Amino acid sequence: MENNDFVKDITNIDEDFARWYTDIVIKAELADYADTKGCIAIRPYGFAIWEAIKNYADKKFKETGIENVYFPVLIPESLLQKEKDHVEGFAPEVAWVTEAGGEKLDERLCIRPTSETIISTMYSKWLSSWRDLPFLYNQWCSVLRWEKETRPFLRSREFLWQEGHTIHETEKEAQDRTIQMLEIYSDVAENLLAIPVIKGIKTESEKFAGAVATYTIESMTHDGRALQSGTSHYFGQNFTKPFDIKFQNREGKEEYAYQTSWGISTRLIGAIIMAHGDNRGLKLPPKVAPIQVVIVPIAQHKEGVLEKVEELNKKLSDKFRVKVDDRDKYSPGYKFNYWEMKGAPIRLEIGPRDIENNECILVRRDNQEKIKVSLENLENEVSKLLEDIQKNMFEMCKERMKEKTTIATNLEEFKNAMDTNQGFINAMWCGDEECENKIKELTGAKSRCIPFNETKISDKCVCCGKEAKNMVIWARQY
Amino acid sequence: MENNDFVKDITNIDEDFARWYTDIVIKAELADYADTKGCIAIRPYGFAIWEAIKNYADKKFKETGIENVYFPVLIPESLLQKEKDHVEGFAPEVAWVTEAGGEKLDERLCIRPTSETIISTMYSKWLSSWRDLPFLYNQWCSVLRWEKETRPFLRSREFLWQEGHTIHETEKEAQDRTIQMLEIYSDVAENLLAIPVIKGIKTESEKFAGAVATYTIESMTHDGRALQSGTSHYFGQNFTKPFDIKFQNREGKEEYAYQTSWGISTRLIGAIIMAHGDNRGLKLPPKVAPIQVVIVPIAQHKEGVLEKVEELNKKLSDKFRVKVDDRDKYSPGYKFNYWEMKGAPIRLEIGPRDIENNECILVRRDNQEKIKVSLENLENEVSKLLEDIQKNMFEMCKERMKEKTTIATNLEEFKNAMDTNQGFINAMWCGDEECENKIKELTGAKSRCIPFNETKISDKCVCCGKEAKNMVIWARQY
Repeated sequence: MENNDFVKDITNIDEDFARWYTDIVIKAELADYADTKGCIAIRPYGFAIWEAIKNYADKKFKETGIENVYFPVLIPESLLQKEKDHVEGFAPEVAWVTEAGGEKLDERLCIRPTSETIISTMYSKWLSSWRDLPFLYNQWCSVLRWEKETRPFLRSREFLWQEGHTIHETEKEAQDRTIQMLEIYSDVAENLLAIPVIKGIKTESEKFAGAVATYTIESMTHDGRALQSGTSHYFGQNFTKPFDIKFQNREGKEEYAYQTSWGISTRLIGAIIMAHGDNRGLKLPPKVAPIQVVIVPIAQHKEGVLEKVEELNKKLSDKFRVKVDDRDKYSPGYKFNYWEMKGAPIRLEIGPRDIENNECILVRRDNQEKIKVSLENLENEVSKLLEDIQKNMFEMCKERMKEKTTIATNLEEFKNAMDTNQGFINAMWCGDEECENKIKELTGAKSRCIPFNETKISDKCVCCGKEAKNMVIWARQY
Repeated sequence: MENNDFVKDITNIDEDFARWYTDIVIKAELADYADTKGCIAIRPYGFAIWEAIKNYADKKFKETGIENVYFPVLIPESLLQKEKDHVEGFAPEVAWVTEAGGEKLDERLCIRPTSETIISTMYSKWLSSWRDLPFLYNQWCSVLRWEKETRPFLRSREFLWQEGHTIHETEKEAQDRTIQMLEIYSDVAENLLAIPVIKGIKTESEKFAGAVATYTIESMTHDGRALQSGTSHYFGQNFTKPFDIKFQNREGKEEYAYQTSWGISTRLIGAIIMAHGDNRGLKLPPKVAPIQVVIVPIAQHKEGVLEKVEELNKKLSDKFRVKVDDRDKYSPGYKFNYWEMKGAPIRLEIGPRDIENNECILVRRDNQEKIKVSLENLENEVSKLLEDIQKNMFEMCKERMKEKTTIATNLEEFKNAMDTNQGFINAMWCGDEECENKIKELTGAKSRCIPFNETKISDKCVCCGKEAKNMVIWARQY
């Protein structure tokens, strides 16, 4: 049977999650491995998801005054060198252009791993007075980081992202902006992608190279690991000083500006797959699904079926993203499996008997529920159902996060929780990097963040037993 | 006086057009030179124009079934080598990555100058049956070509563009697609950017490296030069054979697919500047102007002025892109010059006396006309005026193209026309590249295209006098 073969091709999600993941990426035609090692080609079905994320986020950015720009992809080595921590963090993983136009270059140019350095240089040129501030710029582009181990969407040598870079008159304004953008990221994850996230601040050892503070949204995958899904950095004057970004302040004195940067990437497509998918394949939140309703005709050769299908298609296409699968090469059963694997939120089945009764069947991808609905009510039913699926998918993830979150007060509890119920561990921490390292060594878990809604579990560090400073969320990560 | 200084900074358009152009790019804050040689940073005002072009074109593409995708920026050298003409055309001007992640690479990777090779490789992997066809893919990205002489937007080492790549079952379908996309480009130029273009086919010597045929839209600049503003290529099987892009056709036999590619770029921003600008600065077509109406308050310190301005701003912002310039540092006169230089289509002036009379002044950027309008009617007036400005800007360019187009039947006429009225020359051509070279040498003009609406001027080639094959449009170019 074609049907079974089709599903058999996908690794069981609970047997080998990592392989299940790449199976889905390839089989659902989200992306494919390209001839350039460690890089992927994003196919239409995958790119449409990115476009939905981009459109949503871009609108939110602009509502807060952000403007889009574009800076060169190539950065002269001397610029990358200007901020000490930054170059240490990024230089080992950049790609270098050494020849161009048939000649050796005098100075190597790196392909941007991120654009703080080239943007800061221009900011220095453009800024003179407090009246010019703030600069609230963002660019949608690709960046390159020469990772040793790659995984489509999650850790690709090249990936698409947006990088926002702002400079401000005051520390407070810059800090507020850092948090404001993190809130937008949380909105994108929760309201668009139906993925609950934890917002928090990274510990010293986990922050961005060159930042004063890094804020993060952390999501949880099907197998209880953490996925860093967006970050927002406060730089203070760490870049504005070496890059000489200064302005005449209201008192007529020279002052260095206060800076932020923040980014989300195509990694969010990986987050969707890992948060929502199951053994039937991908499961897409309705708001970003390139196809929200797939219509599968039953007995499509029978008189009137394809005509009715076209009528419904026309009617629904005004409001929803609809696709008719009338391929005569495949059985309805095959198509059911195919579109479940592709994650389409609603399948609409209609055959001769349904047409007689002026009804059709809607099948939900999120919980497999089948609903018979009258064609009179169809648009309303579909609309309500899509909303309900979006909500339910969020709730399912929320529920899982609750189930897979454990409180630990000592290392034994910590290790035990990780071994029996891999997920997030809430535990107190003394603030010492050594304890982070020890926990990593013993359990494979890293500190994810100090959450905004920190609660005090005890007075003692879960690792060393000394006085605790913060509650930290720990997890194994992708 | 601040006002005069401001305008004096810009080179006179008829004295040194090239310098006038770069003055506008910098002063109007469209872009700035970056630290990476030959590359620019596109600033918010320039990027907003690109976004308007992108949104318009992307919608048109999608209406014809095009889907967006993303392919790697780095192309292994071996792939670039596969099509002989293509590598000859592009290899001399690519940038090479030779080191990455701290190591020398085994194989050089070039930054894409265009993506036929990497995309064709994937197409070969994805295509098996005629049922899979067509692939109608497009990507918005940046490309690199290591030009010796650069000019912002027109010839930058890195530029933003879209590149569409399609493969088809039949020659006819691919050829039709090539023309269909050229028609969209013509629509973008004429209806969005208010720039009339000539559509035609390139001569052999001017076509894209690897193409069977290259189609082009050619626009005319203020100084009567040609600007190639978009191209669409028919490849036949030139790439599908070396890249092994084949499918089982309806007869069950293997066949190589038929391919196209087509692109427009940020060069169109250069086209806008060069087609519409004048001695007051940039002149933006209303449809792409980031600011369509700039409100300049008169005597803004007087009671009620800024309140009224805010009221108008609110009312107009629902329908138009509006900006209030209430900077107290500058006089209204300075602001008038400033926004004329930035090319805002309508300036709205309002002061205490206007408010008393419930009216305001609208000033058109295209022809400097001042119109007194009642505040009752404001939205309608602005709407009509923007339409009229858009139309008038197109007509002005159309008129110029007519004035600066000359028919030549021999080389003397040709040379004379070029010297006295630099513009487009319509002249017959025998089809021989030698004649193209000779004309270039004598007059500086190159063949732009054989236009779709070719008319027969005479039987003889304008250069050698032998039997003519086609009418060609010739011009000096940017």
